[in-house]
Parts: sequence; C-alpha cells; structure tokens
Amino acid sequence: KKPILTKEYHEILENPEIDAVIIMTGWGSHIKIAVDSLLAGKYTAIEVGGAYDISECYELVNAYEKTGAPLMMLENCCYGRKELMALNMVKQGLFGEIVHCAGGYMHYLTKGELLDRENNDINHYRLNEYLNRNCENYPTHELGPISKVLGINRGNKMLTLTSTASKACGIKEYIKENHPDSKYVNADFKQGDIVVTNIKCANGELITLTLDTTLPRPYYSRAFTVRGTKGGYFEERRVVYFEGMEDELKFNEEEFFEKYDHPLHEEYSKLGSRGGHSGMDWLVCRAFVESVKRGIQTPIDAYDTAAWMAVTPLSEQSIAMGGTPVPVPDFTKGRWSHREPIAEGKYCLDKICVDK
Amino acid sequence: KKPILTKEYHEILENPEIDAVIIMTGWGSHIKIAVDSLLAGKYTAIEVGGAYDISECYELVNAYEKTGAPLMMLENCCYGRKELMALNMVKQGLFGEIVHCAGGYMHYLTKGELLDRENNDINHYRLNEYLNRNCENYPTHELGPISKVLGINRGNKMLTLTSTASKACGIKEYIKENHPDSKYVNADFKQGDIVVTNIKCANGELITLTLDTTLPRPYYSRAFTVRGTKGGYFEERRVVYFEGMEDELKFNEEEFFEKYDHPLHEEYSKLGSRGGHSGMDWLVCRAFVESVKRGIQTPIDAYDTAAWMAVTPLSEQSIAMGGTPVPVPDFTKGRWSHREPIAEGKYCLDKICVDK
Repeated sequence: KKPILTKEYHEILENPEIDAVIIMTGWGSHIKIAVDSLLAGKYTAIEVGGAYDISECYELVNAYEKTGAPLMMLENCCYGRKELMALNMVKQGLFGEIVHCAGGYMHYLTKGELLDRENNDINHYRLNEYLNRNCENYPTHELGPISKVLGINRGNKMLTLTSTASKACGIKEYIKENHPDSKYVNADFKQGDIVVTNIKCANGELITLTLDTTLPRPYYSRAFTVRGTKGGYFEERRVVYFEGMEDELKFNEEEFFEKYDHPLHEEYSKLGSRGGHSGMDWLVCRAFVESVKRGIQTPIDAYDTAAWMAVTPLSEQSIAMGGTPVPVPDFTKGRWSHREPIAEGKYCLDKICVDK
Repeated sequence: KKPILTKEYHEILENPEIDAVIIMTGWGSHIKIAVDSLLAGKYTAIEVGGAYDISECYELVNAYEKTGAPLMMLENCCYGRKELMALNMVKQGLFGEIVHCAGGYMHYLTKGELLDRENNDINHYRLNEYLNRNCENYPTHELGPISKVLGINRGNKMLTLTSTASKACGIKEYIKENHPDSKYVNADFKQGDIVVTNIKCANGELITLTLDTTLPRPYYSRAFTVRGTKGGYFEERRVVYFEGMEDELKFNEEEFFEKYDHPLHEEYSKLGSRGGHSGMDWLVCRAFVESVKRGIQTPIDAYDTAAWMAVTPLSEQSIAMGGTPVPVPDFTKGRWSHREPIAEGKYCLDKICVDK
C-alpha cells in the first residue's frame, strides 16, 4: 500500500475507529503529523529523530496537554538488552550514585546509507540534512536510555547544553574518491563529521553525546556508558566494572546478563527471537501497543519526546555560537521534581516504579 | 640524597658546569623553577602537569624567548608505541585528512594514588588539587600526542576551548565507605569526577579530552583516537580501521605495529626493553638528552609546553562559567602558521620533518 505522506493522513485522524497512530515518516514531517494526531485525541507514536526548531517541541507538549492523548517516541534503544541491564543495575543501586553517562551514534553512514552504493546519487533524504545543518542530528539512541538512567523529567532534568563540531570532510572526500561525476562533488556539506555535546543535569550529572557518522569507522556499539561511585557499565568494551575489580578485564557483560537482565529482556528471551535489532524494535512497539490496550500512559511520554528532540536545534545553536552553552527548556514547567513514575511494573522504564 | 625543593636549586642554576636541568617536582613548582632555569640559560625539561594561571605559560615562553634555552615537557605519552605508530601513519597520509582526535586520562586514582591504601591519610599532594580546583587537571598525556598529530604550533593551533564537569562524588563516597574516620570525610571536593573538554583548532579539527580519575573504572588505555577521512586509530579497541574494512574487527593493532612502527620504536625494540611504561619514559628522556648533546632544539618545545599547560586554567575558567568557550592563547604570536619543524629526522615528532 502506498505510504501516506500528504494530507491524506487527516482521513485517518478523523476516523473514530482508530485508537492509535504510529508515524514512521521522514524527520521533516514527524512533528507536524504527531501534533495533529494528538489534537485528534489519538495515542501517538513517532519514530526517532530530532526537531528543527525548539517551538516544535513546545507544540508537541501543548498538543499533549490539551487533549491528554499520550505521545511516545519509539526509541528502540531504550529497550536494548545492554541498556536495560544497565538501567536495572542502576535501579538496584549497584553502581552507587550515578555521575556521568555517555553514548554516541557511531555508525558510518556515508556509503550505502546516505549515498547509494552503486551509483553517485542520493540514497536517503538525510543527505539533505548533512548538506544544510550542523548539529547533533540523531541524539535519541543514546539520550533515550541515558534519560531513563538519570530520571530525566521524573526527579531530574537537563539544564544546559554545549555542542562542538569538527570540520566537515568525510562525505566530501568520499564523493570525490568514489563518485567524481556526482552532482554533489563540489557540494559544501555543513554537517561536521564529529559533534560532541555535553549536557549538565539539575542533579549535577554530566551527559556526553557523540555524533560520528561520516568518517570511516567500525560500528561496534553506541558506546553506552553509565558511571557511578561504585561501578559502571562500558558498552564499547562490553564490560561491567565494580570497585576493586582487576584492570585487564575480558569482555564480561555476558556473565551479568544472566544475573541482571531486565525483566523485559528475560521475558523476551523466553519468547524467542522476534523483530529486528535483537528484539528492541519488537519491545518498543509492544510497549506502545500495550499502553493503548490498557489505556494507560506510555513509558516514554510527551515530555521525554520533546526534551530529547530539543537537543538537535539546541546543539545547532550552540555550535553556531562557537560552543556557547544554551539552556534546555523544562517542558514539564517545574513538575519534573515531583512527577510520578509510570506505575506499571513490567513496562516501566523509569528509575523508580511500582511493580504490578 | 634529599630532593631539592627550596631555593637550593638556585645553586644548581648558577653552576656553569651544568648544561641541563630536569624538573621532577610537584605540579605547584614546575613552572617557577623552569622559568629560573631558562633564565639561567639551561636546557630545561619539566615533568607533565598543568598550569594554575595562564600568566605562568606566558612566563615560560618569555623566559625561553629571552635566553633561547630550549624547554621540553617530558610528555612520555608522545613516545608511546601506539601514539607514535598513529603519528607515523598520519604522516604517511594513510588516514586521509585528520578531522578529530580524542583521548582521556582514564585512570582511577582514588585508592592507592590520591589516598593511601592502608590508612585514611593523604598519599599524594594531588589530593589537594582535587579539594580546591575543578578543571582538566592532567591534559598532557592525551594532548601531547594529539598536538603532534595535528601539527599544533607548526601549521595549526588551538583556537577555543569549552569544558564541562560532572558533579564531584567519587572521592567523597570512597572516603565515606573506606575511611570513615578520615579528616576528609566531610570535605567538599571541588574536582568534578568527569571533565570533558572540546578544543577547536585553526584548521577546523576538533580535539576531545576526558579526565576520568575518581570513579571506579579499569585502566585499559587513554582511548587515544585519531580520525581521518580514510581511516583511523582507536586505542580503546586496539584497532586500526580503514574505509571498507569489516565492522566486527578483532583487536588488530599488533599487525600494524609490524608495518608502521615509528622508527623510534623500531629502534627501541632492537635495543631491548629499558625504562618504565614500555619504553616511553626512556625514549622521552633520551630525546631530551640527545638534544642537549647536539645543541639543538628539543622535539617538544617551549610553545608546545606552554600551550598544553594552558589547558588546565582555561578549562577551569570554562567550567566555572558553565561551559562558556574561552580563547586559547597563541603563544607563538602568529608564527604557528609558518614555523619550521625540528629538522632532525630520528627524533622529530612533528608532522612534517626533514630526515637526517
């Protein structure tokens, strides 16, 4: 069936038989459709991505607050086995007080993703983003799980942000070498190859995000890292570390899966493999569908979605101002300090939640 | 023999029989003694460390420019086998245009280093630094090798810097748990556990430095990373990567040592193991001594030393101002764009140098 990319989607939103809408369009139309869907009172899920302007994030929250229809970003990495295990260990206090979290989208996209492998033409609409913007254009794969670990919007919030970008050489060089006849061979790509973003939280934690998509590199991991006063998790080295352990550890995370797998993944393992990306795609979609079926709030909500998407325009502004700190809006308008966790044990991604 | 920590060192500086001085005192006295040594016309070497105030860096450079006596920071990591191999590969153009370099001092110091393992007392004068300052207090192990890769002060320069620090919890928690009777149990440590510093260079490269010394972690590496348009080196994963290689690489750096070992390490391997830290201590000291014997400039010079040490006070200021960018002084006063490399092939650490 033809994807609905135009105003045809309004027909769906007007249909009272439809309870929930999942928006899988390109970055540029996520928010507009989501706002309309929320205003139509539908449970709304959107694919990952960043905003273009901070006003869009307010629009999402305003639409949610107007109708109360839940909004969930389908951030599959919140349901990754490693991320969930770390969250589980954090909840149990095993790492002590959490001080620093980091991660990066470290996925070399140029060949085959942004540009077609076989010819010299554009393969993905994202190439246009790389041409025109310079920002942390894909923050949520890391920031989602990190937000859950740090209790962002439920006891904590992001306060300020700085971003710095390297020069932009990767795509240009790749095209010059591999597609000298491409119409992009002399294009001036704005997106810096590496962008590092530091976010300070209200409770003093530091979040470090890295965008690393246009220089040759292996895609090992998203380098998801959680550091506390008693230990930490290092995805890049596949290591869980506690005070007193030896320096030269082998990859040991497998041992910890046995003991500290999050209940969601424990259950998933019993069900047998289903869906892409080792189950996290299935788990995130199930969480949304289950929320709809039960008529409850989604485990990733409108405030989470707005806050995560805000990082993209904020990073763009900080980079443009030479790394100047910019404030991160508080979309909860002060309620972050006392917002209750989602009280549904199994599906809860919050730091503190009621088991049911 | 008693170390010379007071003004007794002036007796040495006044002795015309002495050609060269190596300063291995604590951070707080490096620069003062170095300035006096330079003004006395001695070849001067100082141990690693940061400055306290930017004026000290100017004093070093002014003293050097006044007498012409060479000044060399004994940054041993510039002579690490991995760092030298990466430099060698960069010089040969194998990684293409270099875009990003990163590294961190990722060494958990609390137990046994800052605090005595057996009792609750201070073990190292550095504890005082952690009590009173919040900065990138140990930048040179990463920044030294990175500066050589990027040609800082010889064709390139650092332009602006931002630093962000996490809260400071690690040492406090460690003391509370392990030394509840310590006089430091209620001390207010200022040094954030994790500090991330981003430096933009005149040629558009980004340098990312991490200080990570007071939360439990393994000491695998300094995560020395060099990224270019054709490939890169990833110390943390012990991997050299080129465009087109597979994603799931095993540790492969050993293969590359065979082919791309820097001439200095090739020679060192033949000599057989000597000195600490896999030879880099010996190599850095030999480089200094050889410069003295030949009466030539040192491969790490006064401008390098000043620029690297400046990062500490600059990061302190940026952190205190919430991550605001601060300018990095150009200690060469414009000469960075055309300064000649040290024209001594074997000992040269510069990107471009004349083989002799």
